[in-house]
Amino acid sequence: MRWARIDHDHTPTYAIVEGDTLIPVRGSPFATWERTATRLNLADVKLLVPVVPPTFYACGMNYAEHVRAVAARIGQPPNLPERPEIGYRANNALIAQGETIVIPADATDKVQYEGELVAVIGRTAKHLTRENALDAVLGYTIGNDVSERSWQKSDRTMYRSKNTDTFKPMGPWIETEVKLDDLVTKVRLNGREIISFPTNHMVFGVVDYLVAMTKYVTLHPGDVVWMGTEGECANMKHGDVCEVEISGIGVLRNPVVREGM
Amino acid sequence: MRWARIDHDHTPTYAIVEGDTLIPVRGSPFATWERTATRLNLADVKLLVPVVPPTFYACGMNYAEHVRAVAARIGQPPNLPERPEIGYRANNALIAQGETIVIPADATDKVQYEGELVAVIGRTAKHLTRENALDAVLGYTIGNDVSERSWQKSDRTMYRSKNTDTFKPMGPWIETEVKLDDLVTKVRLNGREIISFPTNHMVFGVVDYLVAMTKYVTLHPGDVVWMGTEGECANMKHGDVCEVEISGIGVLRNPVVREGM
Repeated sequence: MRWARIDHDHTPTYAIVEGDTLIPVRGSPFATWERTATRLNLADVKLLVPVVPPTFYACGMNYAEHVRAVAARIGQPPNLPERPEIGYRANNALIAQGETIVIPADATDKVQYEGELVAVIGRTAKHLTRENALDAVLGYTIGNDVSERSWQKSDRTMYRSKNTDTFKPMGPWIETEVKLDDLVTKVRLNGREIISFPTNHMVFGVVDYLVAMTKYVTLHPGDVVWMGTEGECANMKHGDVCEVEISGIGVLRNPVVREGM
Repeated sequence: MRWARIDHDHTPTYAIVEGDTLIPVRGSPFATWERTATRLNLADVKLLVPVVPPTFYACGMNYAEHVRAVAARIGQPPNLPERPEIGYRANNALIAQGETIVIPADATDKVQYEGELVAVIGRTAKHLTRENALDAVLGYTIGNDVSERSWQKSDRTMYRSKNTDTFKPMGPWIETEVKLDDLVTKVRLNGREIISFPTNHMVFGVVDYLVAMTKYVTLHPGDVVWMGTEGECANMKHGDVCEVEISGIGVLRNPVVREGM
């Protein structure tokens, strides 16, 4: 099943996606819901961020080639994480399918995409086990962890390198029927494929992270866990369109502008 | 004016605090509101966390003596921040006035309080100036940034050192009439005062942070900014009661237990 969150008569509303048709529901996939009799055309609808998370979790350094690329960039030996330790991003930066990534006027040209799988938590959960961890996941969506590399290097925190407004595109929707090992992530800039990698070739997988996190933290319905990206990333510039595709989920597409251009 | 958030007939409800009386309102201080005819006794009411923030911001290293104490603990020279760079905490860890700080069974004995002023944002704001920054603040509450120091040292992120469930007491309410320079923060363990410091003697103040942050990020109603703590902190153990008092705001009081004791 595929869950979109849409602007329906100016009210954020969950809707089931069936092909090109949307069926708004009363309620939400995080609680109880029932179909309405309304049918909408996907093309006529404004998609919203599929969920505004109570807590916005994100892995860093979760693919081997990306760890090596980052290490080379900062001139240090690569250092694969030894444990699944989760980090954070911020809701102010979220934008939806089709919305514009805005590069601040004082950013360098090193503003890069990071195409990521996002696990969307469906229920309250603590002390998950390897056996039941995935039961806590409602489904999966796509994230683009846009990053300004000079700020990422110079700043004590990631408040502007990764959490500048518009730097966290997420969508287009939540897909509940996903077989993690079958997924492939592709990133395209202006239609040209830059990278393609097996989504589940992570240093630590979704189960590893959920088990480790919930030893100490309670997950809540709507929490999201961004799972990191693979490889070296390329710069995005004014006028570009960035697409992150994950097979079986969809394509997250966002144009890029630079302030003042 | 003093705003509490209470459990009123099992519904989170904002209420005006007048002495020992609570006056529930329809609406909220972050939008529009009107008084109801109900009057409740403060002693009879369950206080909730005064707001669940869309984004939970926190300063690290924002008082000179604390920076020196941390540097001494990790055996490095003290390094005062040169710029106001904001960090993050996580909503899963929030607890309210009177709720229990639970130390995990595998934590060391180095679980410490950090008494902090918390600025609560009242309106959507970007590009704040030194002149209008404080207009974006609805009021102030108190936070206890509970921290497990061995994990803070060993882990790549602060997901368990600072964001273990129950590690973020916040309350008891939001006070809107505050003169920052008059405030004094005191921390007491089991009634004994451990530290007392002028709340506003920060490396970077509320205005500095809000101006710097909103160059890149949009603040939203209900966002909170924890302003850091002063001095060396002491360990809390099973059976302790920790109180953080800020003059003119109130006293945030939480008991401490260790899992499995």
